[in-house]
Amino acid sequence: MPHNKKGKVYLVGAGPGNPGLLTIKAKECLSRADVIIYDSLANRIFLEYADTDAELIYVGKKGGNHTMLQNDINSLIVDRARKGHFVVRLKGGDPFIFGRGGEEALELIEAGINFEVVPGITSAIAVPAYAGIPLTHRDYTSTVAFITGHEDPQKEKSDISWEKLATGVGTLVFLMGVGNLPHIAERLMRHGRTPDTPVAVIRSGTVSEQKTITGTLKDIARLSREGGITPPAIIVVGDVIRLHEKLNWFETRQLFAKRILVTRAREQASGFLSALAELGAECIEFPTIEVVPPESWDAIDRAIKAIESFKWLLFTSVNGVQYFLKRLEALGKDVRDLKGIKIGAIGPKTAEIWHGLGIKPDLIPGEYRAEAVIESFKKLGIKGTNILLPRAASAREILPEELRKMG
Amino acid sequence: MPHNKKGKVYLVGAGPGNPGLLTIKAKECLSRADVIIYDSLANRIFLEYADTDAELIYVGKKGGNHTMLQNDINSLIVDRARKGHFVVRLKGGDPFIFGRGGEEALELIEAGINFEVVPGITSAIAVPAYAGIPLTHRDYTSTVAFITGHEDPQKEKSDISWEKLATGVGTLVFLMGVGNLPHIAERLMRHGRTPDTPVAVIRSGTVSEQKTITGTLKDIARLSREGGITPPAIIVVGDVIRLHEKLNWFETRQLFAKRILVTRAREQASGFLSALAELGAECIEFPTIEVVPPESWDAIDRAIKAIESFKWLLFTSVNGVQYFLKRLEALGKDVRDLKGIKIGAIGPKTAEIWHGLGIKPDLIPGEYRAEAVIESFKKLGIKGTNILLPRAASAREILPEELRKMG
Repeated sequence: MPHNKKGKVYLVGAGPGNPGLLTIKAKECLSRADVIIYDSLANRIFLEYADTDAELIYVGKKGGNHTMLQNDINSLIVDRARKGHFVVRLKGGDPFIFGRGGEEALELIEAGINFEVVPGITSAIAVPAYAGIPLTHRDYTSTVAFITGHEDPQKEKSDISWEKLATGVGTLVFLMGVGNLPHIAERLMRHGRTPDTPVAVIRSGTVSEQKTITGTLKDIARLSREGGITPPAIIVVGDVIRLHEKLNWFETRQLFAKRILVTRAREQASGFLSALAELGAECIEFPTIEVVPPESWDAIDRAIKAIESFKWLLFTSVNGVQYFLKRLEALGKDVRDLKGIKIGAIGPKTAEIWHGLGIKPDLIPGEYRAEAVIESFKKLGIKGTNILLPRAASAREILPEELRKMG
Repeated sequence: MPHNKKGKVYLVGAGPGNPGLLTIKAKECLSRADVIIYDSLANRIFLEYADTDAELIYVGKKGGNHTMLQNDINSLIVDRARKGHFVVRLKGGDPFIFGRGGEEALELIEAGINFEVVPGITSAIAVPAYAGIPLTHRDYTSTVAFITGHEDPQKEKSDISWEKLATGVGTLVFLMGVGNLPHIAERLMRHGRTPDTPVAVIRSGTVSEQKTITGTLKDIARLSREGGITPPAIIVVGDVIRLHEKLNWFETRQLFAKRILVTRAREQASGFLSALAELGAECIEFPTIEVVPPESWDAIDRAIKAIESFKWLLFTSVNGVQYFLKRLEALGKDVRDLKGIKIGAIGPKTAEIWHGLGIKPDLIPGEYRAEAVIESFKKLGIKGTNILLPRAASAREILPEELRKMG
C-alpha cells in the first residue's frame, strides 16, 4: 500500500550484523516500509521488523558483473519509489562507506525522487571494537584510515597511494580485503611499514561466529590462512592492536560462540532468549510446541453462556487468559460480563495480564502448583461453589517435517 | 538499586546527536542503568530513556586540564561499578573513535570490572552524510582518514604525518578542528594538496541547527569565519564534497531549521511532534495546559457508588477514561462492575483505549461534536435513561512562572 503519492527512498545502514547495533530510525523505517531492497550483507533478522505486507527484494551481489547489477538495483529503487512507495534500501554497515549509497542517491536525484540517508554503524569501527581494539588511543595514534581491500592486486596503477598510506596513518582498516591479505601486507612492508607492526583479522564481527586472529605484517597472511579466515572479514593494521589481548571483552564472555536451541513456544521465549544473549550465546528459536485453539470450543462456550453461574474463574497461564478473552469477544461479551465473578491467576505473568486490563485478580497463590491453589481455596472456604478453569488453549507438538519447513 | 552484585560498565556511544541515530542496544542500556555518566557531547534527550531512579552524573569536559579530569572520570566509573551497579558511560559519537573509550576500558580491566562496548554512529561519518557527502564514492576515492583536529598548532613535532596525509588519502575528515582550521588548510596545501581542493565545514550536524559551509583549501578558513562556524564542527576535505550540492537532502527539507513550539498538553503531543520532525522541524514541547484531577472527587464517587443506576457511560476524551478507571480502582471496583452499562466513546482515540482493555464501545458517533452525539442518542431512543458523563479530569492553564521553572 503506497505510503503517499510521491514516494520516498530511505538509504538505510543496517550496521555490522549484531541486532542491537541497528539504529532506532532504521528500525522505524523498516517497520514503515512498503518495499525493502536488501543485500547479502545485512543480517536477515532485521527483516523481522518489516510489516507483513511489505515487499522484500533480495539483491545480494554475487559474481563479477557489478556494474550491470548496480544499474538494475538503481532502476528497481526508482521504479518502486515512482509507484508512490516508502522504499527502504537496506545495506550492511553504513550506506556511505564503501556502500555505493552515493551512487544510488545520485540516481534518485536524477529521477527527481526524495530520499533520506540513515547512517548505520560501520563494520570498520564496530568490528574492531568487538575485538577490543579502539582505532584511536592517545598513547598510540590519532589518525585512522579506511581503505577498500578488494582492489585487484594485478591492477597496474593502484588508486591507493601505498607509499604514503603505509607510514602516513597510524591505524589502517581494510574492508573486504581478506582475499588480498598477502598483497596488502606485502605492499605496506615494501613501502616502509615495519614488518613487526601488529595486524588483526576479524571474521564475522559482532555476532557469535566472531573470530579474531592476530599477528604481524610478516606472518598475518599465513596465520589467517591457517586459522581458516574467509570473507567477510576486517583487517586492522597498527599498534592499537596491542590492546586486543587485554580488552577482548566480546569473545571472552561466558557463553560466547555457544549456539543454543530454544525449544520453548515462540510466544513465551523472549525473556529467556535475551538473558542468554547477554551472556554471549547465540540463540536459535526452534519451538517444538505451539499453542493452538482446542479442537472444539463447545465446552468453553457453554460455560461462557452461563457465566453468571460461576463464582470463580481460575487461570493457569497467559495463553489461557488470552484465548478466554477472545472467545468471550466472539460470543459478543466482554470483561463487563464478569461482574460478581472472582478471578484467580496462577503465576505472576498470568496476574500481570489481568492488571494490564485494569483488573486486580482476587487470588494469586504464593506457589504455582495445583496443591497450593487447592490450599488457598480451602482457606477461602469455597465449598460447593462453581469454579471455571478455562484451559482454552492446548499445546501441541510440532512435527519434524514442519520444523524443517520453518527452517 | 544494584543490578547484580558484580557490577558492569557499558561504554556506550550516543551517536552524533540526532535522536533516531541512537542504537537499539544503547537505548536498552540507558533504560537499565543504575548510573549514567555522560559528557557535554551527547544530546540530553537520550537521558529521557533513563529510569527515574537512575543516578545521572554530568562530567562534561571544560577547560584545559584534561588529564586530571579523565582520571576523576575513571575513578568515578570504577567506584560505581564496585558498588555493584549497572553503569553506562555515555559519550557522543563512538566511544572508540577519539572518545577515550580505550583509556576507560583499560582502567576497568586494571580494576577487574566487566565491561562491554556499545559502538555508536560516529559524527565523522554521519555528519557528512547529513550534508549529502558520501565519504567514499567510486568516481572520487576509495580511501578516507579520520584525524584529530585539536592538536596544538604550536607543537614542534606533530604526531600527524602531514606530508603523507595531505596527498595520500582521498577524503580527510578532521574532528574537533574548527579552531585550527587555518593551520589545517595551510599545512595540507604546504604538503602538496591542490589549493582548490573542495572543503566542507559542518556545524551541529544531524540536528536542526546543522549548517554547512563549502569552499576550497585556500578560502575555507575565511568563509567559515564569515559564516560564524563555531565548535562542534566536522571538517571534510576532498573531491567527494562536489556531491554536496546535489545530495544535500537534510538541510533542504520543508521545515528544516524551523523551531516549533508545541503547546499541547504533554500527554497528547507525541504523534503531532513526530509528524513535524519528519518534515525537518525541531519541536520544543512547551505545554501550556496540563491535565489535572478535579478539585473534588465527590460527584464522580457518588456516581460510581451507584453505577448500576446508569445505562450509559459517555467518554469525551482519553483523559476522561483514564481518570475514571483510576477512580473506579480507588473505590475497590473494576471494569467487571460495568456489567449491563453501555459505553460511548467520542473520538477514535477514546474508543481505542477501550479496545485496549478488551471492551468494544457500544457507541462511537461519526462526528466528534456534541450535536452529533445527541443525534446518535436520539436514534437509539434513550429518553429517560440515566447517562453518566465522567469528566473526571480538568485541563488547567500552566502559569508563566511555572513554565519558566520547567526550563
